[in-house]
Amino acid sequence: MDPDEFRRAGHAVVDWIADYWSTLHQRPVAPADPPGTVAKALPSVPPTTGGESVEALLADLDAIVLPGLTHWQHPGFFGYFPANTSGPSLLGDLVSSGLGVQGMLWATSPACTELETVMMDWLAQLLDLPQRFRSTGAGGGVIQDSASSATLVATLAALHRASAGRWRVTGVDRRYRAYTSVHGHSSIEKAVRIAGLGADGIRSIDVDPDTQALRPDALRAAIEADLAAGDVPTIVVATIGTTSTTAVDPVPEIGAICAEYGIWLHVDAAYAGAAAVCPELRWSHAGLEYVDSYCFDPHKWLLTGFDCDAFWVADRGELIEALTVLPEFLRNAASESGAVIDYRDWQVPLGRRFRALKLWFVLRWYGAEGLRAHIRSGVALAARFADRVRADDRFELAAAHPFSLVCFRLRADDDTNAELLARVNRTGRVLLTHTRVGGRYVLRLAVGSPQSTETHVDEAWTLLTDAAKDLVTP
Amino acid sequence: MDPDEFRRAGHAVVDWIADYWSTLHQRPVAPADPPGTVAKALPSVPPTTGGESVEALLADLDAIVLPGLTHWQHPGFFGYFPANTSGPSLLGDLVSSGLGVQGMLWATSPACTELETVMMDWLAQLLDLPQRFRSTGAGGGVIQDSASSATLVATLAALHRASAGRWRVTGVDRRYRAYTSVHGHSSIEKAVRIAGLGADGIRSIDVDPDTQALRPDALRAAIEADLAAGDVPTIVVATIGTTSTTAVDPVPEIGAICAEYGIWLHVDAAYAGAAAVCPELRWSHAGLEYVDSYCFDPHKWLLTGFDCDAFWVADRGELIEALTVLPEFLRNAASESGAVIDYRDWQVPLGRRFRALKLWFVLRWYGAEGLRAHIRSGVALAARFADRVRADDRFELAAAHPFSLVCFRLRADDDTNAELLARVNRTGRVLLTHTRVGGRYVLRLAVGSPQSTETHVDEAWTLLTDAAKDLVTP
Repeated sequence: MDPDEFRRAGHAVVDWIADYWSTLHQRPVAPADPPGTVAKALPSVPPTTGGESVEALLADLDAIVLPGLTHWQHPGFFGYFPANTSGPSLLGDLVSSGLGVQGMLWATSPACTELETVMMDWLAQLLDLPQRFRSTGAGGGVIQDSASSATLVATLAALHRASAGRWRVTGVDRRYRAYTSVHGHSSIEKAVRIAGLGADGIRSIDVDPDTQALRPDALRAAIEADLAAGDVPTIVVATIGTTSTTAVDPVPEIGAICAEYGIWLHVDAAYAGAAAVCPELRWSHAGLEYVDSYCFDPHKWLLTGFDCDAFWVADRGELIEALTVLPEFLRNAASESGAVIDYRDWQVPLGRRFRALKLWFVLRWYGAEGLRAHIRSGVALAARFADRVRADDRFELAAAHPFSLVCFRLRADDDTNAELLARVNRTGRVLLTHTRVGGRYVLRLAVGSPQSTETHVDEAWTLLTDAAKDLVTP
Repeated sequence: MDPDEFRRAGHAVVDWIADYWSTLHQRPVAPADPPGTVAKALPSVPPTTGGESVEALLADLDAIVLPGLTHWQHPGFFGYFPANTSGPSLLGDLVSSGLGVQGMLWATSPACTELETVMMDWLAQLLDLPQRFRSTGAGGGVIQDSASSATLVATLAALHRASAGRWRVTGVDRRYRAYTSVHGHSSIEKAVRIAGLGADGIRSIDVDPDTQALRPDALRAAIEADLAAGDVPTIVVATIGTTSTTAVDPVPEIGAICAEYGIWLHVDAAYAGAAAVCPELRWSHAGLEYVDSYCFDPHKWLLTGFDCDAFWVADRGELIEALTVLPEFLRNAASESGAVIDYRDWQVPLGRRFRALKLWFVLRWYGAEGLRAHIRSGVALAARFADRVRADDRFELAAAHPFSLVCFRLRADDDTNAELLARVNRTGRVLLTHTRVGGRYVLRLAVGSPQSTETHVDEAWTLLTDAAKDLVTP
C-alpha cells in the first residue's frame, strides 16, 4: 500500500469510524448470538492472492464483526469498569502506528522515551501525586499495558528489595508473602503466581464490613503471623477503588505499617486514579507519600484508549535493578553513559510502542479542565442513579458510591437479582455486570462512556424498575 | 471531539502520515541530538484549558518529535531486527482503536475472540505449522504483545506441568531449570527471572562454533547434570533465527531430547518465523511436531505493526490451568459453559485490545503471495549485500545468512569495527547495529523495511567501503 493508496483508504476508515460513533446508540450493546457465529462467517483458509479493497474489508466489518461485538463505547454500556477512548486518543495512536518506532531503549528512538517521561510528569501533576514519583528526583513514571503488569513489576521490585538483591540470582528460595484485601483485584493473585509465590504466597486480608476497605489491624496480624513462621513479608497491594465496589483502602494506616516492617507498598488505583484530576476527589489519594509504587489506567476513565496504564515508582533504581538484562546487541553509548532512561528495564516485554503520543493528544485536546469535566459528569450521573435506587423501597444500595460506580440490589434473594440482571441486559439497551459483596449478589452500574448522559442512566433505571415489577411484589 | 470533528481531524492525520512516508527517505535515519533535547522543547506543566487544534499538534510533531526519532520504517534502517508495519496494518489497528472493545473474555466482545482464533488458524496454515497448534484440536493460538511475554507464559505452563500442578499452590519450591543456547534472546533470562527461578535457574548451552546453533549433546549433558543434582529440568527454549546471527537450533534433535525427559519445548522464532510463509524456507521449521509452544512476531517481518506476537500451544488446557484466576466479577454463563475461549487466561494482563483486526487487514490486503514476495525481497537484498562482502578482501562474513540478516566485519580488530559502525551511522543515511560472535565484534545489517530496495542496500555498502578506506590498509 503506497502513501497515496493509504491516504484514500485512510479517509474511508476514518469516515467509517465517525459513522460508527454517530450510530452506536442505535445498536444493541451486546450480541445475543451463540458461540461460533462470527467464526463460522469467516473463511477457514487464508487468502492466496490478496488485493482486497478497503471497501470490502469495511463491508465485512459491518456484516460480520459489528453484530458480534459488545460495544464498550456505547452510551448504555455500564458493565465492568469503563474502557474509555476518544478522538484525540485515536489520532495520537494512529500517529504512533504510522511512525512505527520501537522505544525499548532511549537510543532506539529518543523522542519516544522523552515524551513518555514528560507525559508521566504531566500526569503526576494533574493527579497531584507526591514529588517522589517525578522523574526529576529518584522516581519516575512509565506506561505499562495494564494494571496487571504494573502489579507484576511492583512485585518483582519488591522481591528484589526483600531479598537484598539475592532473588535475581537464586530466585524464590524463601517463603515470600504478598498481602491484599479480599477485594484486591484478581491480577494481584495472578502476579503473585507468575512471580513464583503460588497461592500460598498471598494473604487475603479481611475488610471492614461497612466500608469494604482493608482492615489495617488484620494486615498487621497477618504480617506478624508470617514473621513468626519465618516467612518474608514482601509486598502489600492496597487499592484505591476496588473492582467490586470502589472501596478505598486506608493507605495512610497501611503505609505506616509497611514503613514499620520495611515492606514494599504498591497502590492499585486502576479505575479510581483518574478521579484525582479533581481536587474534590483527592481525599481518596491520601497517604501516597508512603507508597513505593502507584498506578492508574488512563484507558479506563481518562479518555485514552487501551493500552495505557500509568505506573510510577519512588525509586526507579530498585525497579531497574530487578528487571535489567543486558545482551551485547542492545549495548550502546547512551545507555552506558547513565544519562538516559531505557524503558525496557521498567517492564516485562522488550519492545514498546510510542504510547505517549495518545496521552499527549488527549491532554492537549482536553486540558485539565476537560478531564475534570469528564470525571465530574460520571460522578454526577452515578449520584443521580443512586438517588433513584435510594428512593425506591424495592431496591437498596449495596455500597457507597464515591466515584462513578453504583452497587445496588433488589431486596430479594440472589437468584432474583441474577434474573433481574439477565432480563435488563437482554433488552440490548444497556449492559450491567455483577459482583458479590459480603457474600450477596449485587448489580454494578459503572458510568464512564463520554456518550453516556442523563437520558441513558435514566433509561437504565426504567428498564430495571420495569423488570423488577415482574420479579418482586411492590 | 464529536464524530464530525474526528472526521476532519482524522483526515488531516492520515494525510500527515502519508506525507511522512513519502518523505521519510530524505530524513536522517537517527538523530544526533544529546539526551534531553526533546524533553527541553516541551512545556514542563500540562495544559489547563485544552482545546488545541490538531494542526497545532501536527506542527509540534514536525518541530519536536520527528527530529528526535530513530525512523524504523526508513529504507536505510538496517538495525536490530526490522519492525515492519504497513498501511493495512495501520488501518486495521485504527478500526480497533475506534471500536475500543475489550477482549479479555469471549463474553466481553465475542467477535474480538473469534476473529483472533480464526486469524491464528490462518497464520498456522500460512506457516504450515503442525495440526496440533490449530484451535480445531487440543491446541490453539493467541496474540501476545511480544516474544518476551510468549516465553514467559510458556515458562509458567512448563512449571505447571513439571510440578504436576503443585506450582500454582506452593510456588517455586524446588530448583526448576530452564535451558537455552548462549545465543538465546535476553528475554529468556528475563522470563526465567520473573518466574522466580533466578540466574541460577537458567543453563546457557554451548553452540556449535560453525553454525552458532545449540549443541544437542551439550543440552543432554546439562539436563543429566541437573537431574543428578536433584534439580528439575522444566523448559528448553530453542531458537529459529537467533538475534545475533539468525542461527537455527536443531529442533528435531532437541525435540527428541525433550520428549525423552518430558521437558516442555518452546520455540522462539520471533524474527525468522515469518520466513516460513515461503515453502523454500520451511527447512528452518523442521521438528515442530515435537514442540509444546511456538511463537513468531508478525510485527517484525510480516508487515504488521507492533504489538503482534503470534503464540501457539499444543495443549491449551495446560496453559489455561497455569494462568487462570476467576473472580466473581468476571463470571459469566458463556465461560462456564466451556464452549468459548477466554483469552485473558492465555496471557499476563487481563485486558486486551482487538489486535486480530490488523492481521485480518494485512492478510487480506497482501494474501499469501504478497507476504512471500516481501520475505523473498528481504532475503534477496541480504544475499546481494553478502555478495559484496564476499567479493571484498578487506571484509569477511561472520555467519551464514539464511534469512535477511548479514553479519560481517572488517578483517581488523574490534575497535576498528566499532569505529566503522560509528562512522557509517553518523552519516544519517543508514543505521546498522552490532553483536559479538565467538567473542568478536561483528556488524549486523538486517533488511526488512518494505521501502528498502537495492539502491539502499548498495548505498549501505558504499558508505561502509568509503569509511573502511580510512580505517584499514587495502
